[in-house]
Amino acid sequence: MINKNKIFILASRPFAHASQENFKLIETDLPNLQDGQVLIKSKYISVDPYMRGKMSEAKSYTEPYKLNEPVSGAVIGEVIESKTSELNKGDMVKGNLNWQVYHVISPVNLTKLDSTVLPVSANLGVLGMPGLTAYFGLLDIGRPDLGETVVISGAAGAVGTTVGQIAKIMGCRVVGLTGTDDKTTYLKELGFDEAINYKTVSNLRKAIRNSCPQGVDIYFDNVGGEISDSVLFLINNFARIVLCGQISQYNVSRMPVGPRMQSIMLTRRALMQGFIVSDYKKHHDQALTIMKKWYNSERLKHKETILKGFENIPEAFFGLFRGDNIGKMIVEVE
Amino acid sequence: MINKNKIFILASRPFAHASQENFKLIETDLPNLQDGQVLIKSKYISVDPYMRGKMSEAKSYTEPYKLNEPVSGAVIGEVIESKTSELNKGDMVKGNLNWQVYHVISPVNLTKLDSTVLPVSANLGVLGMPGLTAYFGLLDIGRPDLGETVVISGAAGAVGTTVGQIAKIMGCRVVGLTGTDDKTTYLKELGFDEAINYKTVSNLRKAIRNSCPQGVDIYFDNVGGEISDSVLFLINNFARIVLCGQISQYNVSRMPVGPRMQSIMLTRRALMQGFIVSDYKKHHDQALTIMKKWYNSERLKHKETILKGFENIPEAFFGLFRGDNIGKMIVEVE
Repeated sequence: MINKNKIFILASRPFAHASQENFKLIETDLPNLQDGQVLIKSKYISVDPYMRGKMSEAKSYTEPYKLNEPVSGAVIGEVIESKTSELNKGDMVKGNLNWQVYHVISPVNLTKLDSTVLPVSANLGVLGMPGLTAYFGLLDIGRPDLGETVVISGAAGAVGTTVGQIAKIMGCRVVGLTGTDDKTTYLKELGFDEAINYKTVSNLRKAIRNSCPQGVDIYFDNVGGEISDSVLFLINNFARIVLCGQISQYNVSRMPVGPRMQSIMLTRRALMQGFIVSDYKKHHDQALTIMKKWYNSERLKHKETILKGFENIPEAFFGLFRGDNIGKMIVEVE
Repeated sequence: MINKNKIFILASRPFAHASQENFKLIETDLPNLQDGQVLIKSKYISVDPYMRGKMSEAKSYTEPYKLNEPVSGAVIGEVIESKTSELNKGDMVKGNLNWQVYHVISPVNLTKLDSTVLPVSANLGVLGMPGLTAYFGLLDIGRPDLGETVVISGAAGAVGTTVGQIAKIMGCRVVGLTGTDDKTTYLKELGFDEAINYKTVSNLRKAIRNSCPQGVDIYFDNVGGEISDSVLFLINNFARIVLCGQISQYNVSRMPVGPRMQSIMLTRRALMQGFIVSDYKKHHDQALTIMKKWYNSERLKHKETILKGFENIPEAFFGLFRGDNIGKMIVEVE
């Protein structure tokens, strides 16, 4: 009988970069299962860049994680024992759960996963929050038109790879910016027209210009900072800039400065808009229906970077900011 | 019989601030009036911030002025002689005309002015390009909702005063930022809820926060730079930032730098969009019909700063960047 649990709590708030000392792995006793509850064992735990924001004290679009309480996020788990008719032993579920090995909870806010989606971990990436982020950001804010040019920063991540593939489905020219040659190779495999390694190219703006002979109509921005500056100088009239992430800025301790882009945006009548996937909650199911079709017909592919071992969650999280991952970063609990 | 003309040509391109040496007043012979042509005498000549952009070599949304050729812009003139049935002597017309005292031209692209709009010079400001700029920027991009808070920079200019009054018609709280106490007084007279002199206030961000207890829903930006930074830190979720002008940046010789605002825009899901009034050409007549009603019923008031004398056009233009004007800056040709 299972009676011990492992939990990662936020031991202190990171100042700039998060590090091991900010997290503490504790062991607790597992409470007894009550009527109406299920016992779930975590199988796949998602680490995502947005979590860095919740580790800071400042209130953003969600509440910060509380000090000395568990960190949480998207988790896929298996029902080990059930005292509710809603779920059966063996069911795979997804929910916003703590970084814990086991969960004794009521099944409210758990989603039973569609068994036709394989591997099940895809529900954390291309068919999870990152995939929906790509879908709504590109289609609702980017509004791609046939033949337009889409540039994506952080292109090899879970969101970027999905954005690029949807943009190809929409008939666009797609250029990805990323930080290793392995990643540029992967992006070309996915069907990106061009992929640029911003770390090794001598002049990023020139490289983007060469890859975008018709200029940039949509810039899907996951990273911010100087990479974005290079793109913004090349936007066309009526360009759309989708602010999805600013990962290069999440660990800075002071307000970053850069060129003022408003004059360029004004003369080119560009639009820049931030968004958060949860703003589109009403439309998630509809989008997932479409994306599952693309996924099952292999128009939408995905890759995962999986670290094994519950203990490795913090390390996987740090890896997001080093660019360790191709596609979705996931921790597999053994 | 009139046979001499005066013309301002662009003698050299300004590097940072424009100055007298960039303009040259020349005298020419006036050509004879041909069949199908009219002779027009300029009465009111508009000077506008956008002209600074056209004095530079770089192509923007319009072609630059050519060196050693006349500067041009909106002009109201009177028909002195007509050899076409389309216009009669005494008609008041508006067109995009050279900085000249007289014009011998075909009436194509001239608009005969509605005699119910008084004074006729209002057709250059509140019922001209600046008024339409205010209308489309605020209503199409800003999309004001009842009870929302609108902050306007460059609030005492031709565009800003109109934006503020339309925002009041739409039921918003309106806060204007401007650079003299005379201007703040005038804005309060126009019905602005608050007006802040950014030059004398000790902490602009704090002053704006005090004037906007519910935060900022719409920022109508005519100036850019540090004034805009102060506003952007205070935007609400789903705020709209209307990029109309960046007058503080037009005379800089190097790319200006400032805080990177993308992270704030992202977490607050804000929209920033540049626009140009000519993009809305199809809808100008419809908008003018509405605005004339507001104007004639005194819901929309205006003020003009008029410099007399054709020779003073450059001086009036320089004055725009010093903030000499309350309302529309106009040169009256005597």
